[in-house]
Amino acid sequence: MDYYRESIKLHSANRGKIEVISKVPIKTKKDLSLAYTPGVAGPCREIHKNPEDVYKYTSKGNMVAVVTDGSAVLGLGNIGPVAGMPVMEGKCILFKEFGGIDAFPICLATQKIDEIVETVKHIAPSFGGINLEDISAPRCFEIEKRLIQSLDIPVFHDDQHGTAVVVLAGLINALKLTHRKFEKVKIVISGVGAAGVAVTKLLITYGVNSGNILLCDSKGVIHKGRENLNSVKEDLAHITNTACHWGTGYPNCRTGGLAEIMKGADVFIGVSKAGLVTESMIRSMARNPIVFAMANPEPEIMPDKAKKAGAAIVATGRSDFPNQINNVLGFPGIFRGVLDAGIKIIDDKIKITAAEAIASYIKKPAPEKIVPSALDKGVAMAVADAIKKLKN
Amino acid sequence: MDYYRESIKLHSANRGKIEVISKVPIKTKKDLSLAYTPGVAGPCREIHKNPEDVYKYTSKGNMVAVVTDGSAVLGLGNIGPVAGMPVMEGKCILFKEFGGIDAFPICLATQKIDEIVETVKHIAPSFGGINLEDISAPRCFEIEKRLIQSLDIPVFHDDQHGTAVVVLAGLINALKLTHRKFEKVKIVISGVGAAGVAVTKLLITYGVNSGNILLCDSKGVIHKGRENLNSVKEDLAHITNTACHWGTGYPNCRTGGLAEIMKGADVFIGVSKAGLVTESMIRSMARNPIVFAMANPEPEIMPDKAKKAGAAIVATGRSDFPNQINNVLGFPGIFRGVLDAGIKIIDDKIKITAAEAIASYIKKPAPEKIVPSALDKGVAMAVADAIKKLKN
Repeated sequence: MDYYRESIKLHSANRGKIEVISKVPIKTKKDLSLAYTPGVAGPCREIHKNPEDVYKYTSKGNMVAVVTDGSAVLGLGNIGPVAGMPVMEGKCILFKEFGGIDAFPICLATQKIDEIVETVKHIAPSFGGINLEDISAPRCFEIEKRLIQSLDIPVFHDDQHGTAVVVLAGLINALKLTHRKFEKVKIVISGVGAAGVAVTKLLITYGVNSGNILLCDSKGVIHKGRENLNSVKEDLAHITNTACHWGTGYPNCRTGGLAEIMKGADVFIGVSKAGLVTESMIRSMARNPIVFAMANPEPEIMPDKAKKAGAAIVATGRSDFPNQINNVLGFPGIFRGVLDAGIKIIDDKIKITAAEAIASYIKKPAPEKIVPSALDKGVAMAVADAIKKLKN
Repeated sequence: MDYYRESIKLHSANRGKIEVISKVPIKTKKDLSLAYTPGVAGPCREIHKNPEDVYKYTSKGNMVAVVTDGSAVLGLGNIGPVAGMPVMEGKCILFKEFGGIDAFPICLATQKIDEIVETVKHIAPSFGGINLEDISAPRCFEIEKRLIQSLDIPVFHDDQHGTAVVVLAGLINALKLTHRKFEKVKIVISGVGAAGVAVTKLLITYGVNSGNILLCDSKGVIHKGRENLNSVKEDLAHITNTACHWGTGYPNCRTGGLAEIMKGADVFIGVSKAGLVTESMIRSMARNPIVFAMANPEPEIMPDKAKKAGAAIVATGRSDFPNQINNVLGFPGIFRGVLDAGIKIIDDKIKITAAEAIASYIKKPAPEKIVPSALDKGVAMAVADAIKKLKN
């Protein structure tokens, strides 16, 4: 099936994917008098007296802005805000379908950090949460940080944390199945953009020895001696790649490219590009390696090849293979939980709670079943419930 | 009925009035693959190649932002963006109900002109049109002007032009019924904010002699000799209030308060405050005067009093009296028309076309029937059709 052509047809037949409808009737004079003037002055005055009542009388508390500047849309790159619209609308309908959350696409006509931050701050009164989407690294880190500091509603960059949560969920079950412990596992991460950085940080918080993580970008492994690193990579160069006794005889931190650093690794996590990993690279890993090849739409290595080369567990981002690591397992439940609980900051504790809820949703993990199906509507509620319990 | 209390109940039972839903199914893997990844890359690439295709593949073309800074909400004044939310949501559902247009409330956390303009410019890619709402005068004039200059989508300040269009519509039928001509009619306008200024300008464009219009704010009539006028009023002081032969013996322009200038007038248009007009002021007008007392929720004079004092035709903003001058007769059809026709600027020709379409929607005007019912869903389509014909 030609997904692209079919999708173009679907989008043009419907002129987009979202609509804004009324939750109340407007058929009679009375309807009009209550939903609009003069009655509407009632809730307005209540909110003016007590601003928190905006959560009681308006849609704000269930409304999330899906904000992009179009700088890193899917694997398509910097295609700009207008061309990013179909993705943002898609995200919005997933919010509704899986989390019961109203979401609205905000595609920004600027890619300047200051302007993005100011604009989102200015439109924030309409929203109960901000989901940043497809904003390129390292700009996304600063934008997210500044918005979290200045807004009193949750701000979440899904490409970072949503991915990190679902990867952690999959890894919890994969490590269990291959009898490994987070404290000792050796991990190679290919791709040091928004997703790679967030996965690294969450894994460290969860108990992975940071020295046991090797990060690889297009120029090779990140290490203390590399020059011209951006500040995020520079920070990571000091805590990753320091425990260099992977049985390969390297005296100090590792150098070289992906092929070199995969030798002896227990886990490969790919958030990079199609086809970067070969069968022989898989064979060079530790016994029964775990391979999360999540480049979209073409993974770093196809599952059949990875398995042939000895991978014990393989996951991808695709719906046509088992173990689909898909953010839809995370963001709807995370936002449902924090919106319902009135949580203002989505911290590591919430992310880990979400990951554990996704992992334990699978009653009996198996090599082809480490995460739930992306279409399973029960996952979001399980995640939301776990988060709401944190508040109690 | 206590509208305020009932409205508070309605708003809290529904937690607001709008929701964002999907126009396409997302039940199966195939649905997900077409509405989201990988298929969605198809329409993204098309739009990237040809940005105008955003109107073909996304909701932009039918989506209007209802933008406020909360500085002049209903008659409540500067209650801020959050307290203004219920009004903006109300406006959004009217857009949908009467115009089939998706609309979304954007309540801004700033009241600075520059910041408002920049913010709206930055979020514009998501929208097919901008409806400015409840922004105080004279700030609203500059904001609207700058946005019209910088955006390639229609920008419309409804408190100005929506009101002006519906007032003109009502006046067309009222003048016909009382055998008057626009060229000669003498008009007093009480209230020189967003609505008063726009009504004045549109009436002049339609053919009223500007010298025959007397504008009155809280300090009295506007005339060339008054000091400390803002720039908008200053401009109007030079073109209104110059034809001073209303039979009252004033040698030059008129001075004084509302009671003085209403003497001899054919038409009173109130967009000001409750109770400003007395029966004796109505009696001082020309024979069979026309009285549009549109202050909300309490008019400048109640219809029964105005009639008792001799008014031939009375209109208000209220749904519980005949002749409700309600913006809902204007904006849904105006936006429906310009969105469908791809019109980028809502100029005077479009406003006049809309007003004439509303007026002629009444086949047989009568003193108690100069405009259609606010609930009549046929009006918007009649307005839209008239506007679309302009394009041909």
